[in-house]
Amino acid sequence: MGKIIAEITMSLDGFTAGPDVTNKDPMGINGESLHDWMFAKATATDKAMLAELIGNTGAVVLGHRTYSVGMDPWGGVSPFKAAAFVLCHKVPAKPVSGFEYVTGGIDEALMKARKAADQKNIWVMGGANVIQQYLKAGLIEEFRLHIAPMLLMRGTRLFDNVGSDPAQRVKESVTETPGAVHMLFRIKK
Amino acid sequence: MGKIIAEITMSLDGFTAGPDVTNKDPMGINGESLHDWMFAKATATDKAMLAELIGNTGAVVLGHRTYSVGMDPWGGVSPFKAAAFVLCHKVPAKPVSGFEYVTGGIDEALMKARKAADQKNIWVMGGANVIQQYLKAGLIEEFRLHIAPMLLMRGTRLFDNVGSDPAQRVKESVTETPGAVHMLFRIKK
Repeated sequence: MGKIIAEITMSLDGFTAGPDVTNKDPMGINGESLHDWMFAKATATDKAMLAELIGNTGAVVLGHRTYSVGMDPWGGVSPFKAAAFVLCHKVPAKPVSGFEYVTGGIDEALMKARKAADQKNIWVMGGANVIQQYLKAGLIEEFRLHIAPMLLMRGTRLFDNVGSDPAQRVKESVTETPGAVHMLFRIKK
Repeated sequence: MGKIIAEITMSLDGFTAGPDVTNKDPMGINGESLHDWMFAKATATDKAMLAELIGNTGAVVLGHRTYSVGMDPWGGVSPFKAAAFVLCHKVPAKPVSGFEYVTGGIDEALMKARKAADQKNIWVMGGANVIQQYLKAGLIEEFRLHIAPMLLMRGTRLFDNVGSDPAQRVKESVTETPGAVHMLFRIKK
């Protein structure tokens, strides 16, 4: 059975997006630079890491805000090869192929993702709020945290709302590239 | 001339101390584990890094709270070989040998530290508030940030109160040890 992986990029000061996230500015003010390791500053190491993640992903879970603000940059289609499950309160009027809309919360999304993923991994890709819910529920098995060497000062905090420290982490690897410090944690049950 | 170095340990979620800092619990609740890389989990690499920092330090600058809560764990004497300058509003009634008390703010402390340090480095060792003041003033030349792989959830945030991102950082090195990810940034003027 595949692993349940949370994977997200955070600034040095703990933000996964800048302030004022809009459809036109989906990463918030200055937030786009968080992802330089995937784009402007991507090295062979960064690309291989991303390719490995995507290649072993059998299902993606994401929140409705990430989905909504992602639609424009993604050109109106799913950027995922795997089935993607969107946590939402209401199924959108115009569904997009490649996405499945889940109104029953994180457990239902996980159940559906598990079925779709078969033996592959489930990638909980964000936003922060969705990762927080899965962390809090003790469902994340591996945490891939990319720390971008920048400050955002304001925005969406990754580790808000998780109550007390939800898990013991075992730091399995740290890889440095110009755009990020990539940390991989195994989370103990 | 030596460099002005900020050096501090932060949790993954951005805290340099846990909540409820007291003289009995100078790192706040759970905060002591931040420094495992120096003590419980110290490797030869961690020790060498610390020895290099201390060996090249000609003057230390610290805040009054760090000084006050440190006094007990330090056994009532200065733990620094170099002259240490304490930023405070009022000179304490019982001065401690090895410390000099500065009531004129960060510029006066830096001026005195510079004189004491001669050709060696000035180590701005915290707390967060003092590092923030020096960062905001654009006076830090090198930032040594140790990220401990733990969450604190509450406490003293390192990057609060610095306004907008105060500086361009160049990530010069990243070293991983079991207790921390050690990041060294040069700050561009």
